[in-house]
Amino acid sequence: MHAVVKKKREPGAEITTVNPPKIKRDEVLVKVKAASICGTDVHVWDWNEWAQSRITKIPLILGHEVAGVVVEAGSDVTTLQEEDMVSAETHIVDGTCYQCRTDRMHVCQHVQILGVDRDGVFAEYVALPERNAWKNDPHLDPAIASIQEPLGNAVQCVLPKDHIEDVAGKNVAVLGCGPIGLMAVLVLKTLGAAKIFATGGGRNRIRMELGRKLGADMVLNAREDDVVETVMDATGGNGVDVALEMSGAPSAVEQAFQLVTPGGRVCLFGLFEQPVKLDLNDAIVFKAATVYGISGRRMFQTWYQVKGLVSRSDFRKKIASIITHRMPIRDIAEAMETIHSKQAAKVVLEPRWE
Amino acid sequence: MHAVVKKKREPGAEITTVNPPKIKRDEVLVKVKAASICGTDVHVWDWNEWAQSRITKIPLILGHEVAGVVVEAGSDVTTLQEEDMVSAETHIVDGTCYQCRTDRMHVCQHVQILGVDRDGVFAEYVALPERNAWKNDPHLDPAIASIQEPLGNAVQCVLPKDHIEDVAGKNVAVLGCGPIGLMAVLVLKTLGAAKIFATGGGRNRIRMELGRKLGADMVLNAREDDVVETVMDATGGNGVDVALEMSGAPSAVEQAFQLVTPGGRVCLFGLFEQPVKLDLNDAIVFKAATVYGISGRRMFQTWYQVKGLVSRSDFRKKIASIITHRMPIRDIAEAMETIHSKQAAKVVLEPRWE
Amino acid sequence: MHAVVKKKREPGAEITTVNPPKIKRDEVLVKVKAASICGTDVHVWDWNEWAQSRITKIPLILGHEVAGVVVEAGSDVTTLQEEDMVSAETHIVDGTCYQCRTDRMHVCQHVQILGVDRDGVFAEYVALPERNAWKNDPHLDPAIASIQEPLGNAVQCVLPKDHIEDVAGKNVAVLGCGPIGLMAVLVLKTLGAAKIFATGGGRNRIRMELGRKLGADMVLNAREDDVVETVMDATGGNGVDVALEMSGAPSAVEQAFQLVTPGGRVCLFGLFEQPVKLDLNDAIVFKAATVYGISGRRMFQTWYQVKGLVSRSDFRKKIASIITHRMPIRDIAEAMETIHSKQAAKVVLEPRWE
Amino acid sequence: MHAVVKKKREPGAEITTVNPPKIKRDEVLVKVKAASICGTDVHVWDWNEWAQSRITKIPLILGHEVAGVVVEAGSDVTTLQEEDMVSAETHIVDGTCYQCRTDRMHVCQHVQILGVDRDGVFAEYVALPERNAWKNDPHLDPAIASIQEPLGNAVQCVLPKDHIEDVAGKNVAVLGCGPIGLMAVLVLKTLGAAKIFATGGGRNRIRMELGRKLGADMVLNAREDDVVETVMDATGGNGVDVALEMSGAPSAVEQAFQLVTPGGRVCLFGLFEQPVKLDLNDAIVFKAATVYGISGRRMFQTWYQVKGLVSRSDFRKKIASIITHRMPIRDIAEAMETIHSKQAAKVVLEPRWE
Repeated sequence: MHAVVKKKREPGAEITTVNPPKIKRDEVLVKVKAASICGTDVHVWDWNEWAQSRITKIPLILGHEVAGVVVEAGSDVTTLQEEDMVSAETHIVDGTCYQCRTDRMHVCQHVQILGVDRDGVFAEYVALPERNAWKNDPHLDPAIASIQEPLGNAVQCVLPKDHIEDVAGKNVAVLGCGPIGLMAVLVLKTLGAAKIFATGGGRNRIRMELGRKLGADMVLNAREDDVVETVMDATGGNGVDVALEMSGAPSAVEQAFQLVTPGGRVCLFGLFEQPVKLDLNDAIVFKAATVYGISGRRMFQTWYQVKGLVSRSDFRKKIASIITHRMPIRDIAEAMETIHSKQAAKVVLEPRWE
Repeated sequence: MHAVVKKKREPGAEITTVNPPKIKRDEVLVKVKAASICGTDVHVWDWNEWAQSRITKIPLILGHEVAGVVVEAGSDVTTLQEEDMVSAETHIVDGTCYQCRTDRMHVCQHVQILGVDRDGVFAEYVALPERNAWKNDPHLDPAIASIQEPLGNAVQCVLPKDHIEDVAGKNVAVLGCGPIGLMAVLVLKTLGAAKIFATGGGRNRIRMELGRKLGADMVLNAREDDVVETVMDATGGNGVDVALEMSGAPSAVEQAFQLVTPGGRVCLFGLFEQPVKLDLNDAIVFKAATVYGISGRRMFQTWYQVKGLVSRSDFRKKIASIITHRMPIRDIAEAMETIHSKQAAKVVLEPRWE
Repeated sequence: MHAVVKKKREPGAEITTVNPPKIKRDEVLVKVKAASICGTDVHVWDWNEWAQSRITKIPLILGHEVAGVVVEAGSDVTTLQEEDMVSAETHIVDGTCYQCRTDRMHVCQHVQILGVDRDGVFAEYVALPERNAWKNDPHLDPAIASIQEPLGNAVQCVLPKDHIEDVAGKNVAVLGCGPIGLMAVLVLKTLGAAKIFATGGGRNRIRMELGRKLGADMVLNAREDDVVETVMDATGGNGVDVALEMSGAPSAVEQAFQLVTPGGRVCLFGLFEQPVKLDLNDAIVFKAATVYGISGRRMFQTWYQVKGLVSRSDFRKKIASIITHRMPIRDIAEAMETIHSKQAAKVVLEPRWE
Repeated sequence: MHAVVKKKREPGAEITTVNPPKIKRDEVLVKVKAASICGTDVHVWDWNEWAQSRITKIPLILGHEVAGVVVEAGSDVTTLQEEDMVSAETHIVDGTCYQCRTDRMHVCQHVQILGVDRDGVFAEYVALPERNAWKNDPHLDPAIASIQEPLGNAVQCVLPKDHIEDVAGKNVAVLGCGPIGLMAVLVLKTLGAAKIFATGGGRNRIRMELGRKLGADMVLNAREDDVVETVMDATGGNGVDVALEMSGAPSAVEQAFQLVTPGGRVCLFGLFEQPVKLDLNDAIVFKAATVYGISGRRMFQTWYQVKGLVSRSDFRKKIASIITHRMPIRDIAEAMETIHSKQAAKVVLEPRWE
C-alpha cells in the first residue's frame, strides 16, 4: 500500500509503498477515507528538537488523525464489523496500569501514540485496536470524523473532568488561535460561555478571522494589544473565570494567570520549548487558582461529548469552517508548506495517492 | 402606593392603596418597572391547599419576580445607589445559619420568601435587602430582568452545583413544559446538549410549540405518547444522561428514572401534591443514579451564570419569546385567567395601575 | 472439585462434586483460600422472592466474596501469574457498553454477577477474568482479602464518586448495622467523620456492640429510640451532613431524609421489598438534598482505596473484628443458621470440605 | 491595654500600652486568652523583604491567630454574646465582591488580614467583625482554639474544595514539616490516607520527630535523601496521588511534580522568595496534573471541618502535641528566638503581660 514514511532521522518524509499492516485478534484494519494534519505531525515532518528526542521508531508512517472504514476485524472483536465508519483515538493504552484502572487511560503509563511510537495513518490502511476505533454515524463527513480527535482536545481543555467548574455564563480567555484554540472558541460558544476573548500571534490572519466567526467576542493581537488591560476592562476588573493556554508561549502563560479571577481556573494545553519561570505566589497561591494539565482526551467520556456536539447540525457547520484546505495526500509536502506559510487553519488530506 | 393585596384567607386578591414600605439601614427601596407571574403566585391567588397551609401573613402583597429602579438606599448600603436597575433574589436569608455559612444560602434555615412570608412585589414599591437586590445592566429590558429569577431556577436544574456532570454533548429529557421547563430547554440547548426531549401535558399548545422553537428535538405528549419507548429508541437504548422533572406529576418522576442511563442524574424541581411511591431499587440503587433536589438558585453563582447568558444577544432574543403576554398590572385577574386557560407561557405585568 | 451447588429452584444447596472450571484465554483459575457470606448469598440460599425472580441459571455454584491463589493463567493474561494472591471483583462486565466506556463499569449494561448469573466461589476453584482478579499483598490474611469486596461497598457508600462532598469533620448517620453498615461506620471513623450515629434493629446485639467499638458515637435502637429527635439534639438542630441508608427499611429512608441537613446528601444502599412512599417535596426538593444510589463499587478506584485502607495496620485490626465466625465450608448450612439467628456479623468460610 | 506593636519600619516590635479598640455595630470585642505565632508573624517581626513590601500600616499590632472571650457585642450582632469563646478567621472580607458572592470569600478582592493590614491579636483585646468571630465549644483549650486557624490551612491543603479527589486510601507526600506541614500530616492520617511521606530540612529535629509521631510512614531529609527515588520505590513506581508543597522551596515544587502520579494533584501552599522555573510540559501538561493554589481557608466550610475534627478526642490529643511551647506574651522576643533556633514546632502565647 501507499504510505507517507519517514525513513531517515531528518526533515521530511517520502511517499512510498509498504506492506499493509496485519491485524491482531483484537484489532481492526481500517481503510483511510480522510486524515488530518496536527501540529505534532508538522514537528515530526520538520524533525525539530522535540521530534528528534521523542521519536525512536524509524522508519515510521506519519499521522494520527483519521477516519476510515473497517475492512477486516480480528477474531476477538465484538463491537465492530466490516463497513463500519470509525475514527481513531490515537493513544494506544495498556488497559491495566494504575491510570488505566482508575479512569485515566489518557495518561496510561505505557501509552503509545499513532504516528509517533507506532505506524500512523498517512497510509492507505491502518491497524487499530478495537478499543481505539470509535464508531461514527455512517453519514458523517470523513473530514469531520477525522478532526474529532483534536476537537476532543478542545473539549478536554474546556471540560477536563466530569466534575468541573462549568463555563456556562462565564467569561473565558483562549490564548492561542491554532486549530485547537479555534475549536476551543467554538466549543465555549456552544457551551454557553458569556464573553470569549481569544488571542493570536497576528501573522495568521485566517485564524484571527475564524476566531471571530466561531464566537470570540474579541480577538486580540498578542504582540500588539495590551491583552491583560483590555480583558480586565471588558470584565469590570474581575478577569476571566477560565483561561485556556493553547499556544505554548511563556508570555501567554503569564497572561493566563494575570487574567484569571481569584479562585478561577487555568488549563495548560500548549507545549513549551523551554522551562517557564513563574511567580507561583501571585500566579497560583494567593489567587487560589486551579490549574489543569491537558493531555489527550478522556477515553471515552470526551468522545461521547464530541459525538453529541457533532450530532448538532449547527455545530457541524461551524466546525467544518475550520477546515480551510482539503488536499490529496500525494501533495503532503505542499500541505506542510501551506501550514508553515500561515495560510491555513486545519488541513485535511484525502486518500488520493496518484 | 398601589398594591395587589390578599386581605382574606380566600381566593383572589384586590388592588388597593397601602403605605409604601420603609427601608432598614441595609435595604433599598425599589420602584417596580416589571413584575412577572410565577406558578407560586397562581397557587397563592387561587388559595389552594398548599397556599392555605403555607401562608401565615395576611394581609399580604403578592408576587416575587421583579425588576425595578433603586429610589432610596439605606445608610449601610455600599454597593447600590439611586438609579440602579435591579432584580430580586427572592429568598431573604439570615446569613448566619449553618447553611448560609457553607455556601447554601438558598436553603437557609430561616429563609423568608417575598410574596409568601413577607410583602411582595406586585406593588409600586418594594423594599429589598441590599444582598437581594441584583444589579443589572441598565439597558436590559425590565421584563427580561424580572424573569431572571425563574431562569435562575432553570439554570439551577441544569447545573445544581459548581462541580457537576456537564450537559455538553449529552442527551437530556425535560419532563414538563411550564415556563421553567421551557427555560430549561433553552438553557440546555445553549449549553451544548446533544438531543433534548421535552414532554408536556398537551393541553397548552403554545408551550408545546415553544418547546420545539427553543431547542427541543422532540416534544412529546405525556398523555398520549409512549415517552420511555420513544426516548429509548432515539438514544440507541442508552437513555438520557440527565432527566429534569419539572412537572410535579408522579408519572413524570417514574419516567425520569426509567429514562435515565445507569449512573446518570435526575433533578427534581416539580412539587407534588401527594407523596410518591417509588421502586427505589430499580429507580435509584441498581442504577447508581444521582438525584438532586432543586430549590431556589445558588446565591449568587447562579445569578452570575444567568447574567452571563443574558449578556448574549442570541440568548436574550430566545428567552424573550417565552414571554407570551405583557399586561398592565391592573388586569392581574385577567392575567391569572389567561394562565388558567392554558393560553400563556410567561406573563409579565407592567406597572400601569390606573 | 467440591462445590456448594443449588441444584433445584428451592431453599438450600448441597455440597457435591463437579468438574473444575476451564479458563478462557483471558481468565485465571483461582484456588479458593477463603470465601465469605454476603446477604445476597443468604437470599439465594433461602430462595426468597427476590432470588426466585432473579436467578435463572440452575444448577448454580453459590458465593461471590473470595480470596485465593492463581493456579493457572490464560494465554492472554499479562498482569497475573501462578502463586499470585487475588480477590474477586464480582461484577463481570462487557467492557464495551456506554457505561463501561465512561467509567461506570459497575453499572455495565450486561453485567454478570458471580454466584448469581454464573458459577460462584463456594467451591475449590473458580475461574475469573483477568480484569476481575484483584492482586493482593501476598501476606494479607485471606479472610480479610475476601471481605474487601463488601468493604468496597462501604467505601462506595461513603465516597460514591471521585468528586464528592467529603465526610471529614462532618456528622454522619448510618442507618442499619449489617456487616456493610458496620464497615461503613469503621470507614467513616477512619476518614475523619466527626460524630457518627448508627442505628440497628436491636435484635442482633453483637452488631450493635460492634457499631460502638468501630467508632459510632451513638448506636440507637431503630425500634425503640426516637432516632430523629436524638440526632437532631446531638447536632444542635442541624442534622447530619450525610445519611447512609444501609438497611432496606422504609422507615430508615424516611429517617435519612429527616436527619439530613438542607443541602446534604443521602446514599441509598439497602434494597427494599416494596416500593417506598416518599414525600419528595420535603425529603428532596425543598431540602436541595443530593441522593446517590449505591451499587457495587467503582472499578477500580474503590479497590485502590480499599487496598490503601487495608494497608494500615490500625484499620486491618478493626476490620478483622467484624469477622465474628470462621467456619469450614462443609458447615455452610450451620453458617447460614448462625446468620439467621442474629448471632453473627461477618462469617468467613474456610476451604475445609471433608 | 498592652499590645505588641511594631512602631517603626524595622525588625522587632515593642510591648507598649495603647487604647483598646472601639467596636463597630457589627463587631465584637474579644479579650485574648491565647494567641499563637505563625510564620507570617515571624516575617513581620524580622521585617524581611516580603514584610517591607507588604506592610503599609505602621504602627501595627502584630499577630492573627487567637482565641478569646467576647466581652462586648455591637448593636447589630445577633449570633454572639458576652462570655462566648471565639477564635478568629483572620481574613476580613467585604462580603460583596465577585469572589465573596460566589463562595470564595477567602480570596476576596478587598481582603484585609489581621496583624498585617489592620491591628492584630498580640494584645489584651481585639475587635473582630461578627462574621470573623468563630464560636467555640466553651470547654476547648484556648491554645488549641487559637491554632484552629492554621489547622484550617492544613485542612484546606488536603481538601481545597467541596468536591475534590479524596485522600482516603491514597498515598500522599507532604513536602515541608513546618507547623502547617505537620498539621497536614495529622489531617491526612485522620482522613484515611494510606502511606504518608513527609520531608523536612533536617535541621529541626523536633519537627522531623513530630512528623513520625503524627502519622508519616516515612520522614525524609530533603537535603540528604533521594526523595523521589525513595517514594517511587515505596509506591511501586506509581508515585503519590497527592503532593502538598508546604515549604516554599523550589526544589520541593520540582519534587512534588516528579512524585505525583499522572492525573494526580499537587497543592501549592508554601510561598517562594523568587519566581520558580518549571518544565510545564513534564510537570503539568503531559501528566494531566491538577494544581491547586492554597490561600487561607474556606469561609466557613473549612472551619466546620476543623470543628468536627477537633471535636474528636483522639484528634485533640494529637494536635496538642504540635504545640511545643506555651510562653507568656511578655517573652515574645524569646519566643521568636526559639523559632529561629529551630527548637520549636508551634508556639502559643499566653496573656501574661507583666
